[in-house]
Amino acid sequence: MSEPTTVTAAVLVIGDEILSGRTKDKNIGYIAEYLSRIGVDLREARVVPDVETEIVAALNALRARYDYVITTGGIGPTHDDITADAVGRAFGAPVGEDPRAMAIMLERYAPGDLTPARRRMARMPEGSELIDNPISRAPGFKIGNVFVLAGVPSVMQAMLDSAVKAMRTGVVMQVESIEAGAVPEGRYGDALGEIAKANPAVSIGSYPSFKDGRFMNQIVVRGKDAAAVATARADVEAMLVTLGANGKPL
Amino acid sequence: MSEPTTVTAAVLVIGDEILSGRTKDKNIGYIAEYLSRIGVDLREARVVPDVETEIVAALNALRARYDYVITTGGIGPTHDDITADAVGRAFGAPVGEDPRAMAIMLERYAPGDLTPARRRMARMPEGSELIDNPISRAPGFKIGNVFVLAGVPSVMQAMLDSAVKAMRTGVVMQVESIEAGAVPEGRYGDALGEIAKANPAVSIGSYPSFKDGRFMNQIVVRGKDAAAVATARADVEAMLVTLGANGKPL
Repeated sequence: MSEPTTVTAAVLVIGDEILSGRTKDKNIGYIAEYLSRIGVDLREARVVPDVETEIVAALNALRARYDYVITTGGIGPTHDDITADAVGRAFGAPVGEDPRAMAIMLERYAPGDLTPARRRMARMPEGSELIDNPISRAPGFKIGNVFVLAGVPSVMQAMLDSAVKAMRTGVVMQVESIEAGAVPEGRYGDALGEIAKANPAVSIGSYPSFKDGRFMNQIVVRGKDAAAVATARADVEAMLVTLGANGKPL
Repeated sequence: MSEPTTVTAAVLVIGDEILSGRTKDKNIGYIAEYLSRIGVDLREARVVPDVETEIVAALNALRARYDYVITTGGIGPTHDDITADAVGRAFGAPVGEDPRAMAIMLERYAPGDLTPARRRMARMPEGSELIDNPISRAPGFKIGNVFVLAGVPSVMQAMLDSAVKAMRTGVVMQVESIEAGAVPEGRYGDALGEIAKANPAVSIGSYPSFKDGRFMNQIVVRGKDAAAVATARADVEAMLVTLGANGKPL
């Protein structure tokens, strides 16, 4: 799906609670940072509701396009947890209780406590591999290039540690951040654009934040070639010096 | 695009910095909560990189499908701010300096300080309406059913206050949250599923959070008919009482 040194991924967040604003998603940012660190490039993220047709459509679009898709949410014991069924539908795979998952559930629950609701957590599409859940046991699963993880951040994070072991990784992006401080973007924007043009092997971003009534800016250089990143960083630093001050308003 | 009492929206977050994990998105959650409050249903969110073809494809998919699309990010003065051009491309509209936006920029900057970079912030597709920016002046814009806002949260939030004035709104979703406390989801999942089936006019979600080594759960009933929501809430509360304890582990 991409050149050998580049491995791509997308995140699919599943859950009405994110779209209603009840729950603020923390998983996209966590996964983004994690994948960057190991050499997998996150290229897209989507949030969809607990509606099977929506999950299936988004999953099929993403899994065809990226090396990996990580889903979060919808694998618990309640009626609104429909991710396993949706993933099965997307792959055209029958969904049923996985004996390995059932064995794990039976280690955790006495047979009398293994309610039908809890048994739902052992359901997954045929052909899935289990993803370990050291927090609350009920496993996630992997089918094809799709990793199906929990939505609760601490559980998702523990599952992600297992999931990435099955991922091919590419060259890790080198990242250099240069503080522009209170130098306004509008003062360095033109010069930075020239630097970006002169350094096509890297991507350069300028990121303002607004605090206590003023903007503070950071310039970030990213690329897979360390020498190219270093050159661009030096260019940016020299530009800021030329502008009159590094970190001081002009 | 939807029944008259329902107004739908999508959010399109634009920016490499979200996908690299450098910046943690706060806009989706804020917009989700805001729109819920005024009677606009957020149905989908996407995060795409600073790549014109990606922005165009996502925007055209979303604007065809939902009543409104809100974009965040990519409207600053630097070379990586390409949202205006991408939106113009999506609409097939030429992009140029808007005279009203230029007038605003000239109120803020002396002509000598109005660098080419800053002039970029006055560029927008022909036919756009300006969206007021009381924080840092450079306006957002609206074209068709698409609202183009800044990425910096405080600026985005101020622009959103203006943007929503141009939105039709639907019936506000009624939301009731019931604390299930430490009652495990696996204990109430089956009964809750029956309640969901018996109350088709509402949607019922069960949301665990994990803290200090244990799960705490909340059940949320949502719907546009207050009586239906009240009935479902009463059913959920009665169910929790029947299970033996409201908020105490079973």
